[in-house]
Amino acid sequence: MSESNAVLIGRKPVMNYVLACITLFHGGAKEINVKARGRAISLAVDVVEVVRRRFLPDVKVKKIGIGTEQLAPREEGGSPTNVSTIEITLAQ
Amino acid sequence: MSESNAVLIGRKPVMNYVLACITLFHGGAKEINVKARGRAISLAVDVVEVVRRRFLPDVKVKKIGIGTEQLAPREEGGSPTNVSTIEITLAQ
Repeated sequence: MSESNAVLIGRKPVMNYVLACITLFHGGAKEINVKARGRAISLAVDVVEVVRRRFLPDVKVKKIGIGTEQLAPREEGGSPTNVSTIEITLAQ
Repeated sequence: MSESNAVLIGRKPVMNYVLACITLFHGGAKEINVKARGRAISLAVDVVEVVRRRFLPDVKVKKIGIGTEQLAPREEGGSPTNVSTIEITLAQ
C-alpha cells in the first residue's frame, strides 16, 4: 500500500482530518491509514468515527494497531522518551 | 467473558491502571478489557503498551474496537454529545 494514503493526525481541528480522509476516498483510494501518537490518539479515533458515521457509512475499520515509538532525548545526555502510537486502517 | 475483568481508564496516573491490569492477570484472568472514552483513549493505549512492554511480555493485544457513545444532554433542551470509545482486549 502506498504511504501517500496516510493521514497523520496532529493538533488541527477534527474536521480538517475528516476532510482529508474524505478527499482521499473520493480520489479513488481503497484504503487509508489514519496515524497518530501521544495525545493525538484520541483525536484519531474521533476522526475515524466522524468519517464512518456522518459521511461515509460504507467505510469499514479494517485494522487497528497500537505500538510504541522511542523519541530521541531532547537534550544531550537525556534519556529517550516513549510515546504510544495508533494506526487505523480504513477501507471502502 | 465476565465484565469484572474490565479496566476503565479515567484521569488517574497511568501506573494505577497498569497495576490494575497486572493484578487481574496475576489473579488468574485470561483476558481483560481496557476501556476508555474521549480524551482518556490515549491513556488507554499508554496503559496497554506499558503492561506489554515493561511488565508482561507474554500478554498479547487480541482485539481493538472503537465506537461512539451518545451522552445525554447536560441541560434540558440541549443536544446530545457524541464521545468516541475504545476497547482493547488483552489476553495471556
